[in-house]
Amino acid sequence: MTSKRNMVAVSLIGCMLAAYGGEAGLVDYIDPRIGSEGLGRVFIGPCAPFGMVRPSPDCTPSPNSGWLPMPERVDGFAQVHVSGTGGGPKYGNILLMPFSDGLTRHDIYDYRDEETILPCYYGTVFRDSGIKTEITASDRSSAYRFIYPATGEKSLKIDAGFFLGESPEPDAREAQQFVGSEVEILSDTEVSGYSRIRGGWNNGRAYTVYFYVKSDVPFVETATWKGNDISGAKSQFDSGNKTGALLRFPEQSDTVNVRVGISFISPLKAKYNYEKESAGKTFEEIKGDVSSKWEGLLEKVEIDPEAPEEYKRMFYTALYHTMLMPSDRTGENPLWTDPEPYYDDFYALWDTYRTSMPLLTIIAPHRMRDMVNSLINICKRDGFMPDARSGNCNGRTQGGSTADIVIADACVKGVEGIDYEKGLEAMLVDATVPPGGNEEAEGRGGLREYLTLGYIPHGIARAGNRTVEYSLCDFAIHQVAKRLGHNDLSERYLRQSESWKNLWRDDYEHDGARGFIMPRDAEGNWLDRLPFGHSKVQSPTYVYTPLTFEGPWYTPWWNMFFYEASSWEYSLSIPHDVPGLIEKCGGADAFDKRLDTFFAKDYFNVNNEPSFMSPCLYHWIGRPDKSGDTILKIIEKNYNDSAKGLPGNDDSGAMSSWLVFNMAGIYPNAGHDYYLIHTPLLKSTVFNLTDGKSFRIVADGLSDEKRYISKAYLNGKRYDYSTLRHADIVAGGELKLVMSDKPGKWGKKMFKEN
Amino acid sequence: MTSKRNMVAVSLIGCMLAAYGGEAGLVDYIDPRIGSEGLGRVFIGPCAPFGMVRPSPDCTPSPNSGWLPMPERVDGFAQVHVSGTGGGPKYGNILLMPFSDGLTRHDIYDYRDEETILPCYYGTVFRDSGIKTEITASDRSSAYRFIYPATGEKSLKIDAGFFLGESPEPDAREAQQFVGSEVEILSDTEVSGYSRIRGGWNNGRAYTVYFYVKSDVPFVETATWKGNDISGAKSQFDSGNKTGALLRFPEQSDTVNVRVGISFISPLKAKYNYEKESAGKTFEEIKGDVSSKWEGLLEKVEIDPEAPEEYKRMFYTALYHTMLMPSDRTGENPLWTDPEPYYDDFYALWDTYRTSMPLLTIIAPHRMRDMVNSLINICKRDGFMPDARSGNCNGRTQGGSTADIVIADACVKGVEGIDYEKGLEAMLVDATVPPGGNEEAEGRGGLREYLTLGYIPHGIARAGNRTVEYSLCDFAIHQVAKRLGHNDLSERYLRQSESWKNLWRDDYEHDGARGFIMPRDAEGNWLDRLPFGHSKVQSPTYVYTPLTFEGPWYTPWWNMFFYEASSWEYSLSIPHDVPGLIEKCGGADAFDKRLDTFFAKDYFNVNNEPSFMSPCLYHWIGRPDKSGDTILKIIEKNYNDSAKGLPGNDDSGAMSSWLVFNMAGIYPNAGHDYYLIHTPLLKSTVFNLTDGKSFRIVADGLSDEKRYISKAYLNGKRYDYSTLRHADIVAGGELKLVMSDKPGKWGKKMFKEN
Repeated sequence: MTSKRNMVAVSLIGCMLAAYGGEAGLVDYIDPRIGSEGLGRVFIGPCAPFGMVRPSPDCTPSPNSGWLPMPERVDGFAQVHVSGTGGGPKYGNILLMPFSDGLTRHDIYDYRDEETILPCYYGTVFRDSGIKTEITASDRSSAYRFIYPATGEKSLKIDAGFFLGESPEPDAREAQQFVGSEVEILSDTEVSGYSRIRGGWNNGRAYTVYFYVKSDVPFVETATWKGNDISGAKSQFDSGNKTGALLRFPEQSDTVNVRVGISFISPLKAKYNYEKESAGKTFEEIKGDVSSKWEGLLEKVEIDPEAPEEYKRMFYTALYHTMLMPSDRTGENPLWTDPEPYYDDFYALWDTYRTSMPLLTIIAPHRMRDMVNSLINICKRDGFMPDARSGNCNGRTQGGSTADIVIADACVKGVEGIDYEKGLEAMLVDATVPPGGNEEAEGRGGLREYLTLGYIPHGIARAGNRTVEYSLCDFAIHQVAKRLGHNDLSERYLRQSESWKNLWRDDYEHDGARGFIMPRDAEGNWLDRLPFGHSKVQSPTYVYTPLTFEGPWYTPWWNMFFYEASSWEYSLSIPHDVPGLIEKCGGADAFDKRLDTFFAKDYFNVNNEPSFMSPCLYHWIGRPDKSGDTILKIIEKNYNDSAKGLPGNDDSGAMSSWLVFNMAGIYPNAGHDYYLIHTPLLKSTVFNLTDGKSFRIVADGLSDEKRYISKAYLNGKRYDYSTLRHADIVAGGELKLVMSDKPGKWGKKMFKEN
Repeated sequence: MTSKRNMVAVSLIGCMLAAYGGEAGLVDYIDPRIGSEGLGRVFIGPCAPFGMVRPSPDCTPSPNSGWLPMPERVDGFAQVHVSGTGGGPKYGNILLMPFSDGLTRHDIYDYRDEETILPCYYGTVFRDSGIKTEITASDRSSAYRFIYPATGEKSLKIDAGFFLGESPEPDAREAQQFVGSEVEILSDTEVSGYSRIRGGWNNGRAYTVYFYVKSDVPFVETATWKGNDISGAKSQFDSGNKTGALLRFPEQSDTVNVRVGISFISPLKAKYNYEKESAGKTFEEIKGDVSSKWEGLLEKVEIDPEAPEEYKRMFYTALYHTMLMPSDRTGENPLWTDPEPYYDDFYALWDTYRTSMPLLTIIAPHRMRDMVNSLINICKRDGFMPDARSGNCNGRTQGGSTADIVIADACVKGVEGIDYEKGLEAMLVDATVPPGGNEEAEGRGGLREYLTLGYIPHGIARAGNRTVEYSLCDFAIHQVAKRLGHNDLSERYLRQSESWKNLWRDDYEHDGARGFIMPRDAEGNWLDRLPFGHSKVQSPTYVYTPLTFEGPWYTPWWNMFFYEASSWEYSLSIPHDVPGLIEKCGGADAFDKRLDTFFAKDYFNVNNEPSFMSPCLYHWIGRPDKSGDTILKIIEKNYNDSAKGLPGNDDSGAMSSWLVFNMAGIYPNAGHDYYLIHTPLLKSTVFNLTDGKSFRIVADGLSDEKRYISKAYLNGKRYDYSTLRHADIVAGGELKLVMSDKPGKWGKKMFKEN
């Protein structure tokens, strides 16, 4: 790898620049552009941590986060978005668009002449209209400042019919579908209404985004529209059509401040959210408030002040990305009211259980507590915990019932304030109640077959990764049951967590590796060829190998044997039983060789979650040096501080939180109480815990040359194990790694006896 | 039976009275009080046919339809109710209550001094306040006239937090649960807001009832409340608390007209519904409009003008009850927007498939078409057709997936404008997709066992009636598949419709009858004792017989072997294979004797749906005379024109439509294209079909003595069969029954060859 770690000069300049701003802090290391282009799809607009409102420009052709780089055309600025998602888009509701024209049309768009993307701030100047738009946001309200050119009309469109991902095909899969909308001009400074949309990636039920718009400049003219009819009417009721409002400000008003309160339950709540967060505050005050919130969170982790600026930007932006979602919608749930917290946009736990949730467990355990309690409550109210949830609706499931792992992670790490008995009940719903026709939305599809055959036979969608992931989820149940003293249950699910072995085809060889998770039919036969399509005449089949991603022609991922990955990847994704996996793979040497092949030939897929932990598998054969080497190479090759600095969909910060841990030199195995210690990218990382304690990881002498851990000290005492217990972090202290230029004997043993 | 048929004097007086009103018509025979007391639970307020709005007084202790007889206290008048339901209540939203006091409290109630319950009109005078309240309604709007005493305050409460069936127990089963509410005083004559509630009988997701209130007298003082805090605030946003408004009118305003627009999608739609239906119309005009709508529908059936007044009231009120529900909420669906009609409050199809829907098929086939299309569309959007649905949410299932039978009924009777291929697809979802954790809400619980074992083993809730009813639903699939030419499918489901035989315990004898549907475990063993409760120590059991309704102590119906009926009843509920049933019962004589015992010993349950067709079973052994005798006795004993004139929950008009058919002398076997002809209670009934044709049933010489059909003529030709094809009704014409004083040879054969 090229040296970034030693670019001290750049680092110093960065520090000076930061200092120059006086109030500058860690927030200035956030660069919302990182991961915004390419596959990353991160949200680039201003927003509060876990905020409900996320305003951003929305570009044609409607990408997942709203924004696309210039020169894409901009349709306006919608108030609700998600970050880093793949598949069909969700949200993009309540679009504001300033323009310079009379109130005679609503098909308005423009192009950006310039654009400023900063933490808690977005600004752009439109090419045609010359209007400057500035945006900041609080939790449930966004703030706009429109600066109009001195000459020309000063108009604003509020579009309650806009949403992302509209498709001309009726009921297209994963496409959002319009349900209804409404607008009402309440006074010469106020507009209210809503947008009601269903569908999207999770095929969710209808959700409604209510808004309240308040301008500091009175309108001199207003119009509203329904469908294609524009009129002077003060309101448009919901008749299943798209509606919106057109507003004109006086000629002399160059600067117009517009605030938007948002609510998922009602128009008056949207107004209340505006009043509570935005009324009486300047644009700068709002920006300052949200910036302070972020600063407080980023301060939970302090990294080597002499680290290269690029690393700081990568690290703190990744930390920021981790805390964009899920959305804290406590008090904003239209489905039920109770004292429990309510989080939505778990999008998806399949992505975030691995590193995002574990990261919160360290730096914001009260958030983890609230999210887990929200999940348990969703099960109580909706019947199942989500694997993914958005727009107040569970859906979809990608593989396992991964909320189980989130609860287990909280449980084994002792997160307080959770009724783990109730958590276990919710997990057992996943493990015992077939979701019937709803297996796309929640629970475990193919559960009955899984329980009777011990695996999911080919023919049921995603049979391969479901079997693998249900095994892990069963282990999660074992973990929680064990800690609660339910020994029978604990043992039963420990046994059941071996189900992955029932799809392990021992004698199957591929590229030097022996044994793979492979398709098997309900009668127990291994399948070398898989049926394709529904033709009864031809019965077409295709060859299935551990590297097959698609059938002979396009096959939806969802109906394949594996979801979004190959057998090479999933056959190494047994995080709860790596020793068992090594044995299945033919022992340590064969496993070592197999991992080498996996990374050398790029069978490893850096851009998706199933392989997240694979680099650390070397730990289990006493080679944490190879784990570290592999991780450093992956970061070097795939991560940077550019707009394309994330190699895959950030998935609500999943990819980013992976980076945070690995830069710090520890990696969690979700559902277990330990972290795998490996060579960090940072010379020091301090986790400031909520109780005033802190835990520091120091890599003494770390350089491009000295990249191997030769010795380690935990709180001053020699520490030869390659894992660190969560309890050691919580207790506060220091893990000191002494670096060397070659691999040594450190870390041959993984676990300290409890 | 005592003679009512010949009470010509009374009848004449009735006619004269009707004529006296000038405009009087069939509507005057509606007496909304019939079935309002006792078990009937019918809705007594003014409403439009299949209307969305049904205003009524709401009495403590919150009964299902809102109303209770005097002297129960009245809490106010809510705008949305259901009719005839059992179990936990639903709706009761947006309560208006006039009172004579300052705006300092909202715990207001009063008692009725007098009460007038008429079709399309409700009036009452309160004892304490002396205020008179009059109500009428259109489809989506209600109209109130409050007449205040000259002296005293003139105040009105609008309660957005009220709903029926509130329970102090958190999350009590079948109890509605509060989610949120909002009120806003828009001007000195307008108030808007909503009530959001979940739960109720069907354990449904949250639904929202929006309102817009318009007064013709300006408020001189207003207040609003949230929880227990009353203030002068003009609005109360939704923070998960109960809210409401208090309004005071000027002292000189004795009469205040208040209109309430209601919507299930938005506040502006509620206003629009008011404007469209109510604005600019007098109370009397609104009442007249809705009265005309009813008149037009009642005119679809003309009965013997000389029939006793009591019969006319019974008949036309029953016809009226049949058309109260489901609720036509086309354009009011918050879940999706599309060109299909949208009906809600199928509450439940399990009740209405038997006679209500078949009655609509004759007199309002376009309604039947729209309801079926609505059901098919609900399957498309929500995954399953409902067995019951209310508050925009499927739930619960009582037995079979009875929407299947509704579709089959429409199909075999040739209702046009339905895509029966899509209907069949929706039926096959019921028949092939296990509803997983949602078996309480939709689909067929225990489907997998039903398909593998051929019956539902004891241990799964309602194993007995589910097996029986799934068999009938399978027959419904057979019927539709056959007509669509899907012969394989048709035959497969015909075979599967014999599944009831797998629970038929041939050698089981009870009170002279041999063979009963009895509980059986998954291994095939018949069970004489059933396990009760969950104790592992005691393993308590209780004896199960064909007359057991409950276990040794209270058992929820839902978890019993049969739902709401005994094995005596369900063992005679095989309407799709009565010949097979007769064979199973030991032949015609044994069957005859069994039926005699069934009715003589009151094993027959007049107050619930499972036995609806049982009186007609005599037809299949060539004894339609006994069917007629039995039916006449049942009516005589259990039905009349009093407030207790319905023997069971009317269930959206199920009990009432049973009466309509049987008074006319034909009874439908839903899902089949024929009616069973028996002795009518009416000397003539004319069905006026929508295409201008009409079909007349005349009982020539019918009297208390001449109560047997000796001969019949269809369009003048001898007709010896005891069934009538739907096609014969549709063609128009006349069925003439020649009555005699003793049973003859007529009707020994059931079916005319097609």
